[in-house]
Amino acid sequence: MYRDTTCGALRASEINKEVLLSGWVHKLRDKGFVVWIDLRDRYGITQLVFDEERTSKELLEKARTIGRETVIQIKGQVIERASKNPNIPTGEIEVLVSELKVLNESILPPFTIEDETDGGEDIRMKYRYLDIRRNPVKDNLIFRHKVSMEVRKYLSDAGFIDVETPYLIKSTPEGARDFLVPSRMNEGQFYALPQSPQTFKQLLMVGGMDKYFQIVKCFRDEDLRADRQPEFTQIDCEMAFVEQEDILNTFEGLTKHLLKEIKGVNVDSFPRMTFDDAMKTYGNDKPDIRFGMQFGELNEVAQHKEFKVFNSAELVVGIAVPGANSYTRKEIDKLIDWVKRPQVGALGMVYCRCNDDGTFKSSVDKFYDQEDFAKWAEVTQANTGDLICVLSGDTNKVRAQLSALRMEMAERLGLRKADEYAPLWVIDFPLLELDEETGHYHAMHHPFTSPKPGQLELLDTNPGAVKANAYDLVLNGNEIGGGSIRIHDKETQAIMFKHLGFSEEEAKNQFGFLMDAFQYGAPPHGGIAFGLDRLVSILGGQETIRDFIAFPKNNSGRDVMIDAPATIDDDQLKDLHLKLDL
Amino acid sequence: MYRDTTCGALRASEINKEVLLSGWVHKLRDKGFVVWIDLRDRYGITQLVFDEERTSKELLEKARTIGRETVIQIKGQVIERASKNPNIPTGEIEVLVSELKVLNESILPPFTIEDETDGGEDIRMKYRYLDIRRNPVKDNLIFRHKVSMEVRKYLSDAGFIDVETPYLIKSTPEGARDFLVPSRMNEGQFYALPQSPQTFKQLLMVGGMDKYFQIVKCFRDEDLRADRQPEFTQIDCEMAFVEQEDILNTFEGLTKHLLKEIKGVNVDSFPRMTFDDAMKTYGNDKPDIRFGMQFGELNEVAQHKEFKVFNSAELVVGIAVPGANSYTRKEIDKLIDWVKRPQVGALGMVYCRCNDDGTFKSSVDKFYDQEDFAKWAEVTQANTGDLICVLSGDTNKVRAQLSALRMEMAERLGLRKADEYAPLWVIDFPLLELDEETGHYHAMHHPFTSPKPGQLELLDTNPGAVKANAYDLVLNGNEIGGGSIRIHDKETQAIMFKHLGFSEEEAKNQFGFLMDAFQYGAPPHGGIAFGLDRLVSILGGQETIRDFIAFPKNNSGRDVMIDAPATIDDDQLKDLHLKLDL
Repeated sequence: MYRDTTCGALRASEINKEVLLSGWVHKLRDKGFVVWIDLRDRYGITQLVFDEERTSKELLEKARTIGRETVIQIKGQVIERASKNPNIPTGEIEVLVSELKVLNESILPPFTIEDETDGGEDIRMKYRYLDIRRNPVKDNLIFRHKVSMEVRKYLSDAGFIDVETPYLIKSTPEGARDFLVPSRMNEGQFYALPQSPQTFKQLLMVGGMDKYFQIVKCFRDEDLRADRQPEFTQIDCEMAFVEQEDILNTFEGLTKHLLKEIKGVNVDSFPRMTFDDAMKTYGNDKPDIRFGMQFGELNEVAQHKEFKVFNSAELVVGIAVPGANSYTRKEIDKLIDWVKRPQVGALGMVYCRCNDDGTFKSSVDKFYDQEDFAKWAEVTQANTGDLICVLSGDTNKVRAQLSALRMEMAERLGLRKADEYAPLWVIDFPLLELDEETGHYHAMHHPFTSPKPGQLELLDTNPGAVKANAYDLVLNGNEIGGGSIRIHDKETQAIMFKHLGFSEEEAKNQFGFLMDAFQYGAPPHGGIAFGLDRLVSILGGQETIRDFIAFPKNNSGRDVMIDAPATIDDDQLKDLHLKLDL
Repeated sequence: MYRDTTCGALRASEINKEVLLSGWVHKLRDKGFVVWIDLRDRYGITQLVFDEERTSKELLEKARTIGRETVIQIKGQVIERASKNPNIPTGEIEVLVSELKVLNESILPPFTIEDETDGGEDIRMKYRYLDIRRNPVKDNLIFRHKVSMEVRKYLSDAGFIDVETPYLIKSTPEGARDFLVPSRMNEGQFYALPQSPQTFKQLLMVGGMDKYFQIVKCFRDEDLRADRQPEFTQIDCEMAFVEQEDILNTFEGLTKHLLKEIKGVNVDSFPRMTFDDAMKTYGNDKPDIRFGMQFGELNEVAQHKEFKVFNSAELVVGIAVPGANSYTRKEIDKLIDWVKRPQVGALGMVYCRCNDDGTFKSSVDKFYDQEDFAKWAEVTQANTGDLICVLSGDTNKVRAQLSALRMEMAERLGLRKADEYAPLWVIDFPLLELDEETGHYHAMHHPFTSPKPGQLELLDTNPGAVKANAYDLVLNGNEIGGGSIRIHDKETQAIMFKHLGFSEEEAKNQFGFLMDAFQYGAPPHGGIAFGLDRLVSILGGQETIRDFIAFPKNNSGRDVMIDAPATIDDDQLKDLHLKLDL
């Protein structure tokens, strides 16, 4: 037996008890006549003590030579500490060691195993197994486990069945790029790793398994943006005999449950907003509604004078930044520089100070009068003391720019509070999205999303206007889940494929099995998928998903710890009937 | 809303209630003046009734035209059945339909959606989504969900943390063949899909996460034997600061929990048997101990006469088949033919009848006398009425043959009872196994398994004799789990790799990260992995894992439903810097 208790367990009530502990040497303080070792394991830290009076000379000498991160096992007696440490749960006691055994030595770690380490991202990733010893990473992984367990418990209690779908499936070139897996037994053929279990969960609905869930790895071979992983985890759900309302209610329930069980927060309000309204009011389809600064569209009250910049703009739109009238001219200039950065991309910014005496002072005073500004203030819901920031230009671009500014100002003003949770359903997404490069429409959600009833005809005349039974769940400005009611009949699915540019043969080749399945009594169905990595990081009050993944990959899709991907043997290539073509 | 209750819910207490139901038309009986429809969903069957007296003519006509597997929605009133059906939970009521809506039609399914279907394996796999509508398949999937949930609950309650390990890892050609995934972003390099998360779970132990579990897909590109899947699911577990005893106790706990919660069976006895004893007593490292017929080695009592077949054999070994003295000569001849089948491979079989009067009658009467046979009976623990079956030859082969006979006889005699559960730990496995083809030793469990203390030196002199801290959990003749105490220091691991034929460079290339990790204070650790597919099928009282997998692959590794693997586009190949080499 290596231990009979852990380094996080001992309290004053255990004083005088003989204990057996194992763990890592976290810290050693040597005062000459006394040596203290902080012994660490997953559960905490227990102070070990060796001193001239009560410890054999031999043992004291042995203790003082032990290096950091050495794994030791000790036997000893729990005693009361002379100077207690109220900052740790075991701070009232220490263990007077009578026997010590080194289980495994450690060379000097490349960074300190402390909450605040001296190791940079790269070195921590290379030695991730040491990084995991640090409380912040360890706690994140345990937190993730708790969230997963609660998700499973809630869904299982609600009648959902966890069904494992296959990982070796078929490539469907539409959408993001698949990771492919050459088949040795089927020469010249390939499996693909699933981008999501979408078609399988729909087939489960056809199979009558009317409530399905799975926490499942998904794969996308995309050029990685910051904080995207080639493999990621989804909470994947589907229900049959449901309308959008049933799904929203079910997953409000799940989200409420998680917020309550995990964060101890009661959230009752899950407002709903159409995609169009979200874009109009927040310039963004995943608005953070923990704070205001809603957009005020100013075209009517700002395009009647001689200010050409506004007059030539498709959209003139502003927000009232609370209390920011206190900004100096210099600070405002800096803000203008900020919106002009390439990452935001505005050409400039007009501002208007809302003075305490009810007057206004603007950068465009020579074009507009006080009465005009009063109208701007009304539209942007500005109060005295606020600063109205106005951008103008092409609708889509200017909305994105003002949304970036709104988030930035909220950050600066401390309005994005980590302990406040404001979920929001964004609904009525467009069915199709125009690819500006190719001029073609593609599915905004995926090709299986159902258009709103009665809008199928619009596909021919105004495809961009067709709305879908699609919805996203947004939490604090992050999309944590998204889904839709699906098409469940062969004819509609065929029409959709046609409009997405599939030939009949392509559609049949790739999704023939699904269209076949729809002929045998497919029930109405729909679902949702949550990004677990993102959900966990937001519930954890952080925004970097990598900190919640045990062994993440870097931005080149590499695991720098195991050094993968890697070259393979020629024999392996040959077995797969492949040649490199570099 | 599509429904306010399900087809499995309604009872006599709901009589007179108005209900809304959706489901599939399972059966329709048309008596002219009355039409009954069995409406089916995941939860059961509810009888709908339409009749001339109480139903509008229009609705009655509509009802009688509806085909099987059509998806309908109905509104109606729960009424008492005239002739109740005690065989189904909803058998006391029926629903008098007032409104009926066809939600989706169905063409004729290729097989009947009944517990006993007319569809063969192939057609059922091609239309698996219809197969899943059948109770046996549906119930198996729900059963699997329950087992998974209980596993997670037990392990989580015991302090285990579910940590997701990566799927895109590095190829390690040692052992079974990997599935490979070409990397687009890293030209000429490949990921591999994990055969198990072995190294990652060990790194988690190095990282201090001292109790880990995961229910995880694993992949092996093997030529498939019957009932093997290229992707399969493991309950993967690892613990630090443990000895073998700790692990056996922990997972006895899990197994007891599952048997109790899932099967309602209390099993307290988990006997332990060494690998050597298992081979000697049952000819098999996964013996079914629900019944006896233990092997009796007869060399001493059968090699002293002139019977050359026995005298030239390495091993003469027999079992006493209970009550089989009643077999006719013809039946025994058939049994001899059975052991001579190529699948078993014995050259012949000697038998000895244990007559009721205490005499013996054998096929080798001319070589042996009654006294000899009495000794045979003693060694094989035969009673009067039994039939002693004796095989001889090379030890390994003859043990396998007699083990096959033992299982066959148990099957015939009904001794393999589906509702009886007899777990067994087989321990002290050999560390290495001789590959008869190459003459090389390879790791019996895997290269990370720790030899028994003090046996490391034997590796040089008698590698086949080295025992490992490795163990299998056997249930009813099936290996449901296996694991080992791992090596946790760099030197021992290096010695192991050397003996497995790795050059230093190969070892470093493939497992350098693990050996590096061992230098930073790796704790003693060990673990186990259960095959979930197998475990679930055994708990479900069946032996075919395919019946417990939602979307299994066939023996060529194909998914015949979605038709994968498949050819891919030239562009996709090009993106991956690959050419076909057929």
